[in-house]
Amino acid sequence: MTLDCPLPHPASDRVLLAHGEGGRLMRRLIRDVLLAALDNAHLRPLGDAALLPPFDGPVVTTTDCYVVSPLFFPGGDIGSLAVHGTVNDLAVSGAEPLYLTLGLIVEEGLPLETLRALVRSLGAAAEACGVPVVAGDTKVVPRGAADGLFVCTTGLGQLRPGVDLGCHRIRPGDRVLVSGTLGDHGLAVLSAREGLGLGDELRSDSAPLTGLVASLFDAGLDVRFLRDPTRGGVAAVLHEVAEATGLSIAIDEAALPLSEAGRGACEILGLDPLFVANEGKVVVFVSPAGADAALACLRRHPLGRDAARIGTVGEGPAGVLVRGPLGVPRVLDEPAGAPLPRIC
Amino acid sequence: MTLDCPLPHPASDRVLLAHGEGGRLMRRLIRDVLLAALDNAHLRPLGDAALLPPFDGPVVTTTDCYVVSPLFFPGGDIGSLAVHGTVNDLAVSGAEPLYLTLGLIVEEGLPLETLRALVRSLGAAAEACGVPVVAGDTKVVPRGAADGLFVCTTGLGQLRPGVDLGCHRIRPGDRVLVSGTLGDHGLAVLSAREGLGLGDELRSDSAPLTGLVASLFDAGLDVRFLRDPTRGGVAAVLHEVAEATGLSIAIDEAALPLSEAGRGACEILGLDPLFVANEGKVVVFVSPAGADAALACLRRHPLGRDAARIGTVGEGPAGVLVRGPLGVPRVLDEPAGAPLPRIC
Repeated sequence: MTLDCPLPHPASDRVLLAHGEGGRLMRRLIRDVLLAALDNAHLRPLGDAALLPPFDGPVVTTTDCYVVSPLFFPGGDIGSLAVHGTVNDLAVSGAEPLYLTLGLIVEEGLPLETLRALVRSLGAAAEACGVPVVAGDTKVVPRGAADGLFVCTTGLGQLRPGVDLGCHRIRPGDRVLVSGTLGDHGLAVLSAREGLGLGDELRSDSAPLTGLVASLFDAGLDVRFLRDPTRGGVAAVLHEVAEATGLSIAIDEAALPLSEAGRGACEILGLDPLFVANEGKVVVFVSPAGADAALACLRRHPLGRDAARIGTVGEGPAGVLVRGPLGVPRVLDEPAGAPLPRIC
Repeated sequence: MTLDCPLPHPASDRVLLAHGEGGRLMRRLIRDVLLAALDNAHLRPLGDAALLPPFDGPVVTTTDCYVVSPLFFPGGDIGSLAVHGTVNDLAVSGAEPLYLTLGLIVEEGLPLETLRALVRSLGAAAEACGVPVVAGDTKVVPRGAADGLFVCTTGLGQLRPGVDLGCHRIRPGDRVLVSGTLGDHGLAVLSAREGLGLGDELRSDSAPLTGLVASLFDAGLDVRFLRDPTRGGVAAVLHEVAEATGLSIAIDEAALPLSEAGRGACEILGLDPLFVANEGKVVVFVSPAGADAALACLRRHPLGRDAARIGTVGEGPAGVLVRGPLGVPRVLDEPAGAPLPRIC
């Protein structure tokens, strides 16, 4: 029976079940923790729904759940990660991110200070990206029914005029670029979670891609397709494109940009950086004529300093080929799962 | 260390960690379980974000996380509940619900058949409400890191032209109506979870309010404010309105509509039905002149058969008063939490 409803200690420094139950404590949590960090004119009325001004043209939406463990990791936390991940899904779809909604599932007993720090980080990231959190919901589940905190974000944006991105635009001969070093996010989270002590330089690349992507559009380059290589890494993007287009993609292993720390960690752990998650990188498919300009454009941006051309699209059959150091191509298999659970 | 990635059994009948990891198994899960039940033209491309046609006027959005336990209960399940709850938040905000996004957090080991049944139920409810699921995300967490399944939905709608709802429109003299019997959802979930055996008649009222609410607007009635009394029940709505308006609200206890089963369950468990959650009811604040017509309008709808006028708005000070059977008013306190965790 769970009918008992002991009066929660008003000065408790932990999240209580009662914080999620629609009463006074919940209203205090919303005001003191959530609204304190996320306040804006759309959220402030705390109605059942947020009323947003009309969008200009087509609406773009995306949704994500974040279950990363640990909640804080070198280079970020679940709060900033949730904002960046959702904003990036909009950006690579050719949309200008405008708004976020926020769902929190909190485990009873989470220190209020932890929740406060994570919501503050989320609020700061949202503000930096210019995407106010306009609606939210908080649920508290008993100890053991969740693991600390799960965050669910939905992003709303409007399509940039004239943008047409998609696998349908990819042609044999197109070049494949990445905007920087691979695998830093997955490796940093893994190292933090497992206490691997792989060095302080291993930091998540979690960052908003809006500006970097906008610079490609603003330069008028013939970008065919963009994707942020998160779960499953760059390999998952390549497999998806190969399957959707029926084309082959040849990757040059020597061209893959890796941080010093990332290269070392992959060697020690026996991981292929093509399969490790990133949270601040973009894979760019671009016409042959636009490839050099696109690469230069990426490199001019602080988030694209280490951008590289890593491959070329070829005729079918569909598949991904990696040319190793000796120039011999091997087929890059799609794994059933991935070796790194709970990295986002 | 969690680096081991044993090859998941291809014929496993349970959700595996690998189902959430961006590889082949995840794509199969998305195709065979999610797309099979939710397919529509917006979702089918399975891109990073969904592209939606321009909205007509202001955009309304709301988000909810569902953590109800058990996942199936008399009258519904977490799938249909998530749709109804989100659609209802849009409806009571004066919006026409158009689209949903869906986030799933699945505990490793959940039977695939359970997930399939819940997603099917969600899909059927979404179809019945005319709100396609246009974007989604699925995460799998290890056994013990979640409890079966959590569902996060975001709703997108457009504001009905000419609608102006809000606490700012409530005046002394306004009447308070409810669309039907109180507490059925919370009591049904509680009874199912705790095995209370309170009778087969105790069923959740989970239902979409779109049509019922539309009938009020279509009748041209001067509706001031609408709210679906979920977590915290009707009492939470009344306290919220009293605080926002600075007005008092007098409720007539004898007028509260209760199902036979609900009345019995509340008596046995010592619960006040004003505090118990509903998932298919609406509280209506309406001008005195429009009250009779609004009540008649509600009663003409299948979901409003048991509608009743339960109270009146008075001058301040802010507060909620309940007149009991002997006519003596008592102050209805706002609880710190609520006695029923995980009912939505």
